[in-house]
Amino acid sequence: MTVTLTPEEARALIHGALIGAGLAEGHAGYFTDAILDTELSGLEGHGFYWLQFYCAHLQSGKVDGRAEPVVETLSPSAFRVDARHGFAHPAIEAGFRALIPAAQAQGIAAMGVYNSYNAATLGYHTGVLARAGLVALGATNSVPAIAPVGGRTPVIGTNPISFAVPGDAGKIAFLIDQSASAVAWTAVKRAAEDGRPIPPGWALDAEGRDTTDAAEGLAGSMAPSGGAKGFSMGLIVEVLCAAVAGGSLGPDMGSFTDEDCRPIDNGQFFIAIDPTRFSGGVFGDRIGALTASILAQDGARLPNQRREANIARLMREGLTLDADLHARLQAFC
Amino acid sequence: MTVTLTPEEARALIHGALIGAGLAEGHAGYFTDAILDTELSGLEGHGFYWLQFYCAHLQSGKVDGRAEPVVETLSPSAFRVDARHGFAHPAIEAGFRALIPAAQAQGIAAMGVYNSYNAATLGYHTGVLARAGLVALGATNSVPAIAPVGGRTPVIGTNPISFAVPGDAGKIAFLIDQSASAVAWTAVKRAAEDGRPIPPGWALDAEGRDTTDAAEGLAGSMAPSGGAKGFSMGLIVEVLCAAVAGGSLGPDMGSFTDEDCRPIDNGQFFIAIDPTRFSGGVFGDRIGALTASILAQDGARLPNQRREANIARLMREGLTLDADLHARLQAFC
Repeated sequence: MTVTLTPEEARALIHGALIGAGLAEGHAGYFTDAILDTELSGLEGHGFYWLQFYCAHLQSGKVDGRAEPVVETLSPSAFRVDARHGFAHPAIEAGFRALIPAAQAQGIAAMGVYNSYNAATLGYHTGVLARAGLVALGATNSVPAIAPVGGRTPVIGTNPISFAVPGDAGKIAFLIDQSASAVAWTAVKRAAEDGRPIPPGWALDAEGRDTTDAAEGLAGSMAPSGGAKGFSMGLIVEVLCAAVAGGSLGPDMGSFTDEDCRPIDNGQFFIAIDPTRFSGGVFGDRIGALTASILAQDGARLPNQRREANIARLMREGLTLDADLHARLQAFC
Repeated sequence: MTVTLTPEEARALIHGALIGAGLAEGHAGYFTDAILDTELSGLEGHGFYWLQFYCAHLQSGKVDGRAEPVVETLSPSAFRVDARHGFAHPAIEAGFRALIPAAQAQGIAAMGVYNSYNAATLGYHTGVLARAGLVALGATNSVPAIAPVGGRTPVIGTNPISFAVPGDAGKIAFLIDQSASAVAWTAVKRAAEDGRPIPPGWALDAEGRDTTDAAEGLAGSMAPSGGAKGFSMGLIVEVLCAAVAGGSLGPDMGSFTDEDCRPIDNGQFFIAIDPTRFSGGVFGDRIGALTASILAQDGARLPNQRREANIARLMREGLTLDADLHARLQAFC
């Protein structure tokens, strides 16, 4: 059985569940917007599905819903945000209030977030910066899932990176949001649950060999996208989030799912660039020509085109979720 | 027949050929260091091989060996360098003189380079920043070689990205330097010259289909590393170099090889981060733990480990090159 909610009903459910589970009122707005946007983007499993973990983690004390993030100004273009074992979203929201005007004033600015939590859909955050007219690079690290090429022990997470490009009048021209692994970890997990084999190239067993057995893959590691090049992309994220921002390294993090009292304490890093400061006036034309050269090709699309189409459709059709999940979320309200 | 040169003989040959072909004396130092470092790193074909093009382009007027790059200060942390149709290296060198102290003072700084030229080994430049204690991200764009996934017409180049991480005392902890394509374009070109087939996944034919025919691949496009994720990485580079820095878009660039009078006019973009400003003192320990977790695994290695080993070996053994190429280079001196 499924339940279908209008976007406004979905917003009320998300906000109510977060507040009901113990999130401070002032921290719920940006977070609710992010979760709703994720569901509307068609990223099923990343919105409502994770919301149940967020609420359970509030109740278990894994995350502190009352923690006030502290934004430290390191220079006119550098900021450091202590999420203080609260959610990532209030910390990122608070940091962006300093980051956006700094990037506009200086041409470039950056911020690290530490003592943080699951950033959920990373592209939501970079999208906020792009809507403010900024080219944005974002990174967030996670629990180990990918072994170095040639090795067998995961040392970095699927560690997504996101890059958002502003378009005209507060719009996003396009947005990249991708993990360092060939496929999402949940794709392997679902295959294991269903007893289905996985295609070669998705995961490695505990000995570092390519496997088509999903359970062996879960016990081993995720294959990096494009081999060593994908591992390197995850390594860039790990350096920015753990070594520069001061979040924990993958192996030292708390679990993203367990309802324990141990904070995740990972990190995020964002760089915001005002393209008009650098480009001598050509930015808009160049982005227009670049996107046109892709869209002119049958079968090709811009990186976020599918998400944009989903938003338009699901705003009309409403959001459908499993009735059991809906009931669990309502119980938090 | 081959010729083997000591590193000092190689340096004299590189410097002599550049000056002899028309490069201003003051622009030859950093460029010579970069070419020599590339050869010592074992990146055969990227040092001496490209040097003959640099010299021929000086003589044909494609590149202006006397052009003085102009560094414009946009803010205390943002710079724009007009290479003025000269080589990329003097422009990057001049920009770095402003970028390095700015990153140290502000925590982060960036610079775009436009009206530029082949940056050669991108990791040489980011390595210079890492040796100054900075985490460095570098990008350079190039002539179209990769089609968007689902399309068939190349719109972006193999567009490399580089990321360098400082270690202790002016050393590099590790350095990533990789293109957006699955393999280097030269690997397909050599197979075509030899009439050898290429493995699936290297290139696509003019209809956008995977091909094992190297000649068809050259007439089509290079396969992006990891599919859409690799194309996206190349797209990030294109945005930074063409739209932000103001270099030409791939399709509007001059050729990297033809001895014509048409400048390449591509772009570069560099971001330099002082990790000590952001990390609250944990940077060195985190990088130490991260690299140790990779090096502890038999068969795994750090991204630049092979290059470092080559430098140590070739400093002793000397650099070997084809006698014909050696003669061509000597003729420029």
